[in-house]
Amino acid sequence: MPSRVAVCGAAGFAGGLCAALVQRHPELELTLLTARSDAGKRHDEIYPRYRVPLEMHEFDADAVAEAADAAFVAYPHGASAPAVKALRERGLKVVDLSADFRLEQGRYESYYQPHGAPELLEEAVYGLTELHREAIREADLVAAPGCYPTAAILALHPLRELMRDAVVDAKSGVSGAGREATGTTHFVSVDENVNAYKVEGHRHRAELEQELGEHAPITFTPHLVPLDQGLLASCYVSTDNGISGDELRELFEQEYANEPFVELSDSPPGVRDVRDTNMCRIHATVEPATGRVLVFAAIDNLWKGAAGQAVQDLNLMLGLDETAGLL
Amino acid sequence: MPSRVAVCGAAGFAGGLCAALVQRHPELELTLLTARSDAGKRHDEIYPRYRVPLEMHEFDADAVAEAADAAFVAYPHGASAPAVKALRERGLKVVDLSADFRLEQGRYESYYQPHGAPELLEEAVYGLTELHREAIREADLVAAPGCYPTAAILALHPLRELMRDAVVDAKSGVSGAGREATGTTHFVSVDENVNAYKVEGHRHRAELEQELGEHAPITFTPHLVPLDQGLLASCYVSTDNGISGDELRELFEQEYANEPFVELSDSPPGVRDVRDTNMCRIHATVEPATGRVLVFAAIDNLWKGAAGQAVQDLNLMLGLDETAGLL
Amino acid sequence: MPSRVAVCGAAGFAGGLCAALVQRHPELELTLLTARSDAGKRHDEIYPRYRVPLEMHEFDADAVAEAADAAFVAYPHGASAPAVKALRERGLKVVDLSADFRLEQGRYESYYQPHGAPELLEEAVYGLTELHREAIREADLVAAPGCYPTAAILALHPLRELMRDAVVDAKSGVSGAGREATGTTHFVSVDENVNAYKVEGHRHRAELEQELGEHAPITFTPHLVPLDQGLLASCYVSTDNGISGDELRELFEQEYANEPFVELSDSPPGVRDVRDTNMCRIHATVEPATGRVLVFAAIDNLWKGAAGQAVQDLNLMLGLDETAGLL
Amino acid sequence: MPSRVAVCGAAGFAGGLCAALVQRHPELELTLLTARSDAGKRHDEIYPRYRVPLEMHEFDADAVAEAADAAFVAYPHGASAPAVKALRERGLKVVDLSADFRLEQGRYESYYQPHGAPELLEEAVYGLTELHREAIREADLVAAPGCYPTAAILALHPLRELMRDAVVDAKSGVSGAGREATGTTHFVSVDENVNAYKVEGHRHRAELEQELGEHAPITFTPHLVPLDQGLLASCYVSTDNGISGDELRELFEQEYANEPFVELSDSPPGVRDVRDTNMCRIHATVEPATGRVLVFAAIDNLWKGAAGQAVQDLNLMLGLDETAGLL
Repeated sequence: MPSRVAVCGAAGFAGGLCAALVQRHPELELTLLTARSDAGKRHDEIYPRYRVPLEMHEFDADAVAEAADAAFVAYPHGASAPAVKALRERGLKVVDLSADFRLEQGRYESYYQPHGAPELLEEAVYGLTELHREAIREADLVAAPGCYPTAAILALHPLRELMRDAVVDAKSGVSGAGREATGTTHFVSVDENVNAYKVEGHRHRAELEQELGEHAPITFTPHLVPLDQGLLASCYVSTDNGISGDELRELFEQEYANEPFVELSDSPPGVRDVRDTNMCRIHATVEPATGRVLVFAAIDNLWKGAAGQAVQDLNLMLGLDETAGLL
Repeated sequence: MPSRVAVCGAAGFAGGLCAALVQRHPELELTLLTARSDAGKRHDEIYPRYRVPLEMHEFDADAVAEAADAAFVAYPHGASAPAVKALRERGLKVVDLSADFRLEQGRYESYYQPHGAPELLEEAVYGLTELHREAIREADLVAAPGCYPTAAILALHPLRELMRDAVVDAKSGVSGAGREATGTTHFVSVDENVNAYKVEGHRHRAELEQELGEHAPITFTPHLVPLDQGLLASCYVSTDNGISGDELRELFEQEYANEPFVELSDSPPGVRDVRDTNMCRIHATVEPATGRVLVFAAIDNLWKGAAGQAVQDLNLMLGLDETAGLL
Repeated sequence: MPSRVAVCGAAGFAGGLCAALVQRHPELELTLLTARSDAGKRHDEIYPRYRVPLEMHEFDADAVAEAADAAFVAYPHGASAPAVKALRERGLKVVDLSADFRLEQGRYESYYQPHGAPELLEEAVYGLTELHREAIREADLVAAPGCYPTAAILALHPLRELMRDAVVDAKSGVSGAGREATGTTHFVSVDENVNAYKVEGHRHRAELEQELGEHAPITFTPHLVPLDQGLLASCYVSTDNGISGDELRELFEQEYANEPFVELSDSPPGVRDVRDTNMCRIHATVEPATGRVLVFAAIDNLWKGAAGQAVQDLNLMLGLDETAGLL
Repeated sequence: MPSRVAVCGAAGFAGGLCAALVQRHPELELTLLTARSDAGKRHDEIYPRYRVPLEMHEFDADAVAEAADAAFVAYPHGASAPAVKALRERGLKVVDLSADFRLEQGRYESYYQPHGAPELLEEAVYGLTELHREAIREADLVAAPGCYPTAAILALHPLRELMRDAVVDAKSGVSGAGREATGTTHFVSVDENVNAYKVEGHRHRAELEQELGEHAPITFTPHLVPLDQGLLASCYVSTDNGISGDELRELFEQEYANEPFVELSDSPPGVRDVRDTNMCRIHATVEPATGRVLVFAAIDNLWKGAAGQAVQDLNLMLGLDETAGLL
């Protein structure tokens, strides 16, 4: 019997895709959707191409608990914590897509705001599957990582023992900025443009520091590029003693040989190569002129960078095949 | 009386814009166009929006010399050298937009091919106006720099005494790849995509090494982004002793205070901010978390990165106001 | 001595370009900018590429009248009428870019709302230059036409005696939807999309009816396409007695032979052919299979469809060369 | 046991997607790929995101017949006929995606060229599933329709008894132009552009005439829009006696109520609504001002306009559920 799953916050880009992935999942049943300002609308009014013919309701923890055994929560940070708390109190397994449960409390509060449910932080697991698979299997609350950290950490993790310093120049499509209509997301602002933003400290840096930071100082600069879904992290790593191209390739092959959603490529990946998939495609090489290590990691920010990885996490939490519904 | 100017190679993107810029220039007269495979066509068949109603002819050095006092040569590298040589022998001032006269011979031949007119290298001046203005004024042959080096060198030049190492992550629109129809320039390859390319050594690296290379090892990685005209160089610089944000700003202000085509901005520039202009827009800052210097430089690759800068060079060579026809 | 010109509503896309066009105009002096919600900002904060270094002020009719002899008003319909009235009372020549003075009162009020200054309608001239040049020369108040009507009317006007019916299928870039951030203008809504909208009656229909409507029933359907500036009107015209291709070409040549901003092309125009220009590029042909007349007219919606045509109008009103500042 | 299926011409856009659809199909087994100039390459070198890890071979009818029970042929028109003939002689069921078997011989030869296998035309069925479902079920050779005719015919078919005349203004993404790199498909030609093309007679007109032509004269004008996958047919229909909006809706509901891949929407569809799906999304309405019938039909040109419909056809030919592998 398939597990019954609710998606809270199904009107946003990440939650909207969660609903679609659950609907097509062979072992999950989509039972309830919630939304905030779009409550009362049907999901397929907003996302016709997903063809999820369900109405979205106001959030009511009891109603969710009655309808579902597990839930994705895709509210903005701050709004997520109380919803997650209410669902955990009612016994649901939860994958949260906001930042609320990704960081230990001090780090969270220095980057975001006072935490709304700090008592849950102890049980929360950072849901970057490739790094924390076993903990995710045991968890009842998983925090799906941010899109930038997902690509950057997968790119840098194999180098963790060698890194002296690292630069992460990341390029994201506009869906990463969310569904809110702002000057930043206006077509005319983005079209025929590319620019860096939040260069003095994007909040996703907190996740890089937590997962990688002890190893080396990391520069992280996000850029906006004129496309919808896709994220490329171009990483530049200095190592203490140098490394050959062959050693580098071997390092990545060892790390990711058995990973269903990481693939190594012989040339720099494009985000188009992973569009609408849960894959992270990586190319690592040594720049001949400088000996510096270059790693390029491409993901679809809404899939492996959000909803896809969240489903990957829930699959593990429910004891299902990790790839179910994602290939 | 305006100087009479020919554009050789007017069917390509850079040469095509050269023709348009000369036509609208108040002190230049556009007298002759040449092209190779498009000889016989009118310029405005290929570039209607430029509205240059002239036919393009096969290259004939005598005909060019008869019609013009100065010429832009915008043939591909290798094809440019003999045309430039023929025009110099006939006394024309030449701005060459290919790589043929940008590098000293050894460096050229290691990155490109045997040089077709090495005897001219001594008189050739590297046409990055902001660095070589006085030499350009005296020159009869100027090599307009590549698009990537223009942005990267303008970004890094003020830091030349401080740099310990540098990473240049550059993003270019598709017009930088030229007018040839290839798998790389097919709309479906570029649309909704972003990827690094030639990561093991793009030839524009040679210009970075020549102009900056004694200062520090430089990593240089070009990326292709889904837009037409525009280039952003995101530069990450480690310094020996650190530098404060205020010192950094002062350094850039001193360097560029009087430059008509460099502007400093308070936030990271977008390539849209300089589209269809000859401006280089730069933002420099210090990343709080690491102390690393970040410099972002945006240009229009066809203007300041090619045809615009070539006109800026010719203005100087002819004793005109450097900004004539470019504002 | 150049005429002193103010731009009221300089923060919007059309007003923003007006300011840039006036600044570069050889016979106009840009003296004052106003804006509503962006008052207090500099124009070049919002539109860096135009490089207009002026602050935008709250609208104050006395201040505008003191600073300027003529004004462009680019407020939304409804907001425009009182500003225009105040400026006309103070003796300024005005080109209004809203819909407020394009239509006779009854038609305006059936498509829009009660009119805010109906007493001015008598002196207002519809500013489609090619149709109303002489009246514009004499006018003190000109209403610059909408972008869709500009292209459609220029396409259909030469056929006015022959049309039995017409279909106008128009495609506009997103700048036509204005600078407001909405679900419609969000990058993710527009990117990789094309759709018709307001198919049961877009308000620009009123201008088509006024200028062409007595001739034939006209179907008018606007579409949104994923680009910034550009508008293509594809027009399908049934004629009573048929017309040959040669007759058709002759008709258009007669109509537009001496027009500086209309050009006839041998093949269907692309909006890229007219980008950032004041040209309307037209191709007319007869479909062999049906005998139907096809006319394609391309403009830049912000130039010939708004600010460019507004400058063209003001040039005439001030006795200047119609093309001044526009080539 | 799943049917074994080959895809001949798997390197093109349509054939490339066919391979992906067969691979993920629950009741088909992908056994062999062929290509012409890309023979020897793996499919996932060209289309990484489809993740089909098979090598493409030179076409050899015996090898195909040994490996497969059915085949998709996606060669260009002219090249397709001999391949189809060879496979039919060996007993395979074939869905051909070229134009070679869509038309009766006279019409084909007047639009294309002398036919390469006219003896097969009798058994070939035009594969627009919604119109010819029963014949497709019985067929061994089906010709998948062109992308433009698919959308236009589905839009106009319900009106076949009422149409007096019709205009089809169609907008296609660039993948419709195929994978060949040409001036037309160069990113810089398409980006920020929209234009009509082949306005004096696109070959897809032949299919409209065959399927609809007896009903009324049809104007058909294709346009190119700057996006990858998607096709919108905007249709303008005059009727003899008029029709109300309610009658119109009822007509479409009757026609398509039980169609799994046609959906009626309350507002004009965008191509984004059907991206990467086999759906045709249609909105029909009556323009109040003129009484003209407007029908908008959106498809993904590579799915319902090519590979998706081809799979839909093969499903029927093999006695499978029509929607298998397509939802």
